[in-house]
This record gives sequence, C-alpha cells and structure tokens, in this order.
Amino acid sequence: MRLQVLQKCLSKWKYCLQVSAKMTYSSQFRSMSRMVDRVRYMQKLKENEGACQSAIKEGYFAIFCNLKPLLTREGILWKSYPDVVRSIALSYNCDPLKDAVFVTVDGPGGPPKFAVNIPSPKGFEPKEFETKVGEDLGGRASSLRKAMFILPEDSVAVLSLAYSMLQWHSKTQFCSCCGKTTVKDVAGYKRSCLSCSEIFYPTTQPVAITLVTNGNRCVLARQPRFPPQMYSALAGYSEPGESLAKTVQREVAEEVGLEVDRIHFHDSQHWSLPTSSLMLGCYAELMDGSSDEIKIDKAELEEARWVSREELQALLEDEEATTRVPGLVGGPNIYIPPVQAIGNHLITSWALQK
Amino acid sequence: MRLQVLQKCLSKWKYCLQVSAKMTYSSQFRSMSRMVDRVRYMQKLKENEGACQSAIKEGYFAIFCNLKPLLTREGILWKSYPDVVRSIALSYNCDPLKDAVFVTVDGPGGPPKFAVNIPSPKGFEPKEFETKVGEDLGGRASSLRKAMFILPEDSVAVLSLAYSMLQWHSKTQFCSCCGKTTVKDVAGYKRSCLSCSEIFYPTTQPVAITLVTNGNRCVLARQPRFPPQMYSALAGYSEPGESLAKTVQREVAEEVGLEVDRIHFHDSQHWSLPTSSLMLGCYAELMDGSSDEIKIDKAELEEARWVSREELQALLEDEEATTRVPGLVGGPNIYIPPVQAIGNHLITSWALQK
Repeated sequence: MRLQVLQKCLSKWKYCLQVSAKMTYSSQFRSMSRMVDRVRYMQKLKENEGACQSAIKEGYFAIFCNLKPLLTREGILWKSYPDVVRSIALSYNCDPLKDAVFVTVDGPGGPPKFAVNIPSPKGFEPKEFETKVGEDLGGRASSLRKAMFILPEDSVAVLSLAYSMLQWHSKTQFCSCCGKTTVKDVAGYKRSCLSCSEIFYPTTQPVAITLVTNGNRCVLARQPRFPPQMYSALAGYSEPGESLAKTVQREVAEEVGLEVDRIHFHDSQHWSLPTSSLMLGCYAELMDGSSDEIKIDKAELEEARWVSREELQALLEDEEATTRVPGLVGGPNIYIPPVQAIGNHLITSWALQK
Repeated sequence: MRLQVLQKCLSKWKYCLQVSAKMTYSSQFRSMSRMVDRVRYMQKLKENEGACQSAIKEGYFAIFCNLKPLLTREGILWKSYPDVVRSIALSYNCDPLKDAVFVTVDGPGGPPKFAVNIPSPKGFEPKEFETKVGEDLGGRASSLRKAMFILPEDSVAVLSLAYSMLQWHSKTQFCSCCGKTTVKDVAGYKRSCLSCSEIFYPTTQPVAITLVTNGNRCVLARQPRFPPQMYSALAGYSEPGESLAKTVQREVAEEVGLEVDRIHFHDSQHWSLPTSSLMLGCYAELMDGSSDEIKIDKAELEEARWVSREELQALLEDEEATTRVPGLVGGPNIYIPPVQAIGNHLITSWALQK
C-alpha cells in the first residue's frame, strides 16, 4: 500500500533533528574513532595544500560537462587520475590538479573523491559538446535534477555537493571587492584574490521552508515554474537581520498574507538547485484569531490553498496516481514534491500524523 | 539573585523556536492584518524602485562611518533626508539616494528607516576621519560590537541589519563572475552586473553553534580571539552538501574529536560579526559508548573542557563575578558570552534545567 511506502520513507527521516541509525557504530572504541578519523582526514585534505596535492593522484573523479554530471547505467562515471590525465586533460585543456574540487572520502584509508567540470569551449554548441564528451568518456551528461531523482541517496549526495562546489567556483572567478582574478586552492575550499588578498569560501544560503497549518488543514502553494499541478510548502531565503522564526513570519506574510506563530523546526536538508541552500524545514501555526483568508503575492505564486489532512491522506493512498507524473506523489488534482525533497517530508509527516 | 536575573533573561528566549509574546497582537482582525500590511509595505520598498525612491525622501538615516555606527547618548544618531543632504551629501560626497540601504519601517504608515556609510577618503587617517565626522554630525563612531552590548534590543537589531547590508555592499562592488562593476538597486536588496547581467542578493551564512552534553556535563571551548577566560559552545559554518545535523557532527569531530548524535535544534539568531550569519543553536549528545576524551584542533581552539552543570550553576550564581569582566557572565575561572549572544542562551538554558 502507498501509505506504507511513505511511512517507510518517513522512518528514514527524523521527526526531530536526529542522525540516521547507520551512523551509530558498534560500541568498540576503535570503531568509534573511525568517524572522527574520517572527518579529520577530510579536514586535512581541505586545509593542507600538500596533502591534497598528493591525494589527488590517488583519487577518483566525477566528471561534469557544463555542470552536468556524466552518468553510466551503473550510476556516476568515476575516472582515476591517470584516466583523467590521459582522456580529459589532454583533449579538453582541463587540469585535474588545478581545476578539481575535493568531495569526500569513503573512509580514513579509502581513496579520496574529486569532481571536475569541462565547460564547452567558445564556438561549440553546448549540447553537441556534451554529447561528444559523453561519447569520448563512456558516459552521458545528465541534468543534476534528473540524476537526483534516479540515483541512490549516496550518489545524489556526492553529485549535489560536487555541483554546488563547481558552480560556486564558476561564479567566483573574480574578486567581488576589487574585480581582480581569484585563484582556487588545491581542495577547492577557498579562493583568494591575487590583488587585495580577500579570501572567499564556498557559500550556502539558509532557506526557510514552511508548512502553515491550522487544525486539520495546511497551506499548499504552487510557483509558476513547478510541474503542472504540483504544490508544496512555502519557501524563501533568510535575509540578514532575521532569525529563522522571523524569516518564516515574513515569508508567510509576503507570499500568502497570513500571520503565523508557534513555529517549530522539523528537519533540514542541503539542496543544490538552483544554487547551494541549507533548507530549514519548519511548521508554523496560523495565529489564533487571525484571518485565514489567503491573499497570494502574484509575483511569487501562481496559487495557494488550504488542503485538509484527509484530502492529503487520500492523495497519498492513491498508488496509481503516482505513476501519472513520474517522480511526484499524489493526484489526480494535486501532486506534492518527490520523496527526495524536504517539502515532501514536511507535508507527509504532517498528513500521516494520527 | 543572579540566577533569577538569568531566568528572567531566558524567559525572553524560547526553549523552542517560538515567537515572542509582543508579536501576539489582540484578536481583532484589524490589528491582525497590521503585521501583514507592514511586511508587504517593506516588501514593496525592497522590490519597487519608484516606491523606494519616493520613500527615501521621507526617511530617517542611521549614519555609519567606516562601517561604525554613529551614536549619541540617547542611542542611534538618526538624521532626516534634508539633514543628510545638507550635512552629509555635500561634505562627504555621499549620495543618500544612491548609497543608502533600506532597513525597516516601524509600521505600515511610519517613516522608513535607512542607513548610509561614509568611508574615509584616501589619504585620511581612519580614526581621525571618524572623529571629525562624529563632531560634524553630533555623534560618536562606535564599534558595532560595543554598540551591541550597550544599546536596547530594538536598536541593536536595526544596527546589525544595517551593518550587514552596508558591509555586503562594500564587498560586492564587482561581479564575481566577470569582474566588472555592479550597481545597487534603490533599496539595497540587490546588485546587478552591468556587463553580464548577473544579479547578487545580500548573503547570510548558516552557522551551527552546538553545546555538546553528556549527562551532567557539557563541553565549553575557547578560541584564541576570545576575551581572557571566556568559553562558549562550538561553532562552525555549514558547508555545501551538509544538513544541519551533518554540520554539527563534522564540526564537533573536527574541533574536539568527539562523536555526537541525538542532535536537537534549540533556537536561532542573526549575528552580524564578523559577517552576516544565521546562528543555528543546537544541543548534541555524546554518542553512547564513544570516547569522552577531548582532542582539540589547535588551529581552531585554544582549550576545551568538560564542565559540570553544578559548576556552571555556581558560576551563574556568582553575582559579583559578572562585574569583573564587563559584558560577560561568570567567574572567577570561566566566563560565558554575554546575554545578547545565542551561546549564552544555549549554555544557561541547559545549566538551569532541573
């Protein structure tokens, strides 16, 4: 049954900000220290230029073309350093030692993983170039969004991080203080200005995503860019000067003209599209005695409506409907975001509450 | 008694992410809609160039010199638009219509508030210039940090926001994608590149601030830049690819070599120093069966130690000690951050739990 599948999915997410069971190692100290060892090894590769320069030659590389990951039927296309030097550096004027970003390690002893982007040269039609690179290397350039919906969780995590880092580098080529060129460190965790010495670190923007509730109803809204009939919770960037609660209150007032309080944090998620964000999932209740009339901001939203818990439960039960719009959940009149997105978990957690 | 003062302070903050009582208006709808009206009026001033251009002439301006706010004995030095034109624009080659950032409005009908920065001209000794500007305008340039510890909460909120915005503009004069000049919109809520059309919005970085606990003990740590004997919770920027829980786990492992789980969000706060951050306050428990041996990262921390709840309570009770290091709480061997900082609230909330 559809409901059971969703409940199983939800059990993977936490109602509170807790860590997944797989992080709980056995109680032996030797095993315990492996997580610290791994984190500190990663810290070393991020901060120590020499250590990273050596590690890069033992590393494996996820290849992006125009910021699109190259995939095979098995998942991410991984290339070793010699492969990269032989098949990429020479053909595409791309230097893995200079252009790669460090992504992760599987364990303290495991090989480090990097990512490198091959941008299409001037005068080349981007799509044509992506096809050529894919054919040359034995993969296929896919949009990150598509990859996120078909690959397993750990591959998605690697690609999302790599994409965020590569995109940040492509947009931080110049110093925002003085306009001169910036240069990447080996790991890709900072860029420095050659002229005024300003240092830049990869950025991620806090975004509040909020499900407004009132008793047995919640507010679902759709942005014009959503797939047809897809609705989600309200979302907006946190601005300087705001706590998370203030962001939630402002964004709800701006977008649907409602007043909320009793704001509770639920869970968080990194989201790399369109740019790197830390999505902070919250519930907010309509303020007692305030108007429940939705007045949408037409510049932001196409529509917003109150939906009952029963209506959502029926929609989540409708197994057949899920197949109508691949990736989305629900139907026939409303779909909610796919299970990969925190918006799905905010909505289904609330809908499935007893 | 010191403990009562702290409990009173804490009652102003929430154990959960709730909104302060003063936001709960009376139950009349007319009053209810005022918050939405205010937010939407602010949104209009942020997004509508013409509306903001008109409003600016009715506005009041907080003046910064070299990003230091000008204060009087009564608090922030506010200047009207005619005052700014007369006494600032002419003398300091500073155009309020071009350089000011919108900060807030007191209500939907109230005058809008802006902030403007006067940087010291080349060849001028900054301190000398700040003194001169202060004398000319009838105020005194103070460091933001000092202002944050002496002014009431609402003034601090205005100055912190203004500082974050003005600092962001001073550091976003050029396009990070192509290196060409960027221009501010009227309200200061975006900058656009004249050459490649890239748009930049004011940024704020998510930071996890975490109190690690284990039964009756918690970890307090000090960074070398802290005032002598001041200790606080662990803090670090969230990186691309991380959820908040992952940031907490990585940062605790990196900084003190401990493994944590059962991570709970407590509360959040905007903090403008050194640059705009959304501080996300969390508790994390030492993982069952993992080592409690602290191994600090010497590059980040000077010291870290387990402190018992009783030790903290005694320190918070020691009223006299508070006066020894102005602004800080505690003594004689450990001080914790002032009540304005979320670090204080994480520590005291936990210490005062029954």
